[in-house]
Amino acid sequence: MGRLIMDVAVLAGGVGGAKLAWGLSRLLPPERLTVIVNTGDDFDWHGLRICPDLDTVIYTLAGIASSERGWGIEGDTFRMRARLEQLGCEAWFQVGDLDAATHLLRTGLLRGGASVTEVARELCRRNGVEARVLPMSDDPVATRLDTDEGTLEFQEYFVRRACAPQVRRVFYAGIERARAASGVKEALLRAGMIVIAPSNPYLSTGPILALEGVREILQARRSAVRAVSPIAAGKAYKGPAASMMRQMGEEASPLGIARLYSDLLGALFIDPCDEGLAPSVAALGIRCIVRPISMNTGEEKVELASSVLRFQIAADAGLPQPGEASSESWRRRS
Amino acid sequence: MGRLIMDVAVLAGGVGGAKLAWGLSRLLPPERLTVIVNTGDDFDWHGLRICPDLDTVIYTLAGIASSERGWGIEGDTFRMRARLEQLGCEAWFQVGDLDAATHLLRTGLLRGGASVTEVARELCRRNGVEARVLPMSDDPVATRLDTDEGTLEFQEYFVRRACAPQVRRVFYAGIERARAASGVKEALLRAGMIVIAPSNPYLSTGPILALEGVREILQARRSAVRAVSPIAAGKAYKGPAASMMRQMGEEASPLGIARLYSDLLGALFIDPCDEGLAPSVAALGIRCIVRPISMNTGEEKVELASSVLRFQIAADAGLPQPGEASSESWRRRS
Repeated sequence: MGRLIMDVAVLAGGVGGAKLAWGLSRLLPPERLTVIVNTGDDFDWHGLRICPDLDTVIYTLAGIASSERGWGIEGDTFRMRARLEQLGCEAWFQVGDLDAATHLLRTGLLRGGASVTEVARELCRRNGVEARVLPMSDDPVATRLDTDEGTLEFQEYFVRRACAPQVRRVFYAGIERARAASGVKEALLRAGMIVIAPSNPYLSTGPILALEGVREILQARRSAVRAVSPIAAGKAYKGPAASMMRQMGEEASPLGIARLYSDLLGALFIDPCDEGLAPSVAALGIRCIVRPISMNTGEEKVELASSVLRFQIAADAGLPQPGEASSESWRRRS
Repeated sequence: MGRLIMDVAVLAGGVGGAKLAWGLSRLLPPERLTVIVNTGDDFDWHGLRICPDLDTVIYTLAGIASSERGWGIEGDTFRMRARLEQLGCEAWFQVGDLDAATHLLRTGLLRGGASVTEVARELCRRNGVEARVLPMSDDPVATRLDTDEGTLEFQEYFVRRACAPQVRRVFYAGIERARAASGVKEALLRAGMIVIAPSNPYLSTGPILALEGVREILQARRSAVRAVSPIAAGKAYKGPAASMMRQMGEEASPLGIARLYSDLLGALFIDPCDEGLAPSVAALGIRCIVRPISMNTGEEKVELASSVLRFQIAADAGLPQPGEASSESWRRRS
């Protein structure tokens, strides 16, 4: 098998995408890795511009993310936030004192005329991150949810209401006027592999795929598009993906994920606990690889990343891949 | 002598003005005290709006100001700032983690359309400050200094360059279009006493007096206008007032202060160490009261405030005031 070197583009939301990107960053030369990050969660907080997913990806690649929380900076304190609460301000969004420096730097640069892309590049440089981290767009896109409590902004739903409301529809305000950021389409066209990270399909990868022209590129490059399921045994590794899928009338399983990506996915990595779904995934024309997909430890992240890379190399060489369940092999078993 | 109750308006910069205002606030019912605060130092810092003098006055009146530094909040930490430095940002301006909550709240309110006056009222309310704290203006005014290092923004001169440059001229950009904030002229017209706090005459009280109509009110109400000298024994209690006065060709003494305010000042409080200057002050038509003017302890602040209040009450009643050196009495001595 060849060296684990190719251009890889990752579509990422927050924690799940950041973990897989980190695993890939341990294996690839930095210039080979492009992480395309959801900006639908971005919002203004007391005048500061906050880009939660970009920060999670950058902090994780920089090795400073909180290992316990997944988001924010390891060892951060929350004194500023406590003081805001003391002053009677809404402070349900958790901004740490170290984390706040990122938002100040970003807000200052944006007000000085920099684009979100330029700010991300600057944050990468100043945090020693060599991989390329791109926001999906420099234009404002705001993920909103129609729920049984009315239409909510993303952070209202996600943080303030802790994902409790029943979701009826997810939409991305501004998406029709937003263009993919410079470099995004190029990276998707050039990549030897496009990985859809184990992120929420509505809240994290949904906005990226909804950008003009992006879904079409993935459809055209289907044999290079792989996803890691964010769901195993009916549960999401993090966040509300499973319950949202049910609320949206979809099965909360890797098969539901496969259906949402059925027009563009070449291969899906699912956990052994969901092995029984592999034939149904394969029946959608999606190659299904069964292997552990949890990323709790650094080792697990690197092993999963390595497995995804090796699968692509084998596929490009026309070699069989251990763990793959083709629809034929599953039919033979059953 | 009557009760120490009258409407008092204080013209204040930062620390010195805050200390005298605090002393007055211990003696007056809150609705009787209006503190009119310099906003020429206000600036944007990484997208946050910072009003240093307003914050110093509010923190001091709220009893949460750092007793050691005079500015900022007691017991604050500077983790956000340290992280900004780590990220390679300019972080010479010291914003504490607790202090930052004030700037976030302010910036959010301003972006929501609130005026500087409304924000100050909100900050007072949330900090339990009952006295009225008014910014001098809701319009932007920026104090700038022509120096031997070129023209500097106030904070560049004051913090980054630690007042080292030689000052040739001080000006207030925007002052000709700025109007006094609502309530400022009314408070000056209504007050039984107007106190010019021991603040830098160029940097702190200068911008307030330069607002259209303000100096004229004080000139017309001269018998109600009192100042406490910010200089004793040729030195300022805080900041660069003494060296600036010399650089501007003025004597760095209470006499120099008296000259700068000679058109509007009814009485000047000077320290016993400067007693010898009292005849010259009196010769300018300014009543000169010699008494300790340091405000290191709470007791000293209250005693000075009490002395200023009692002087006004005695003056209004036509009574003599102990400590006053009339030009006649000084002439008799000499």
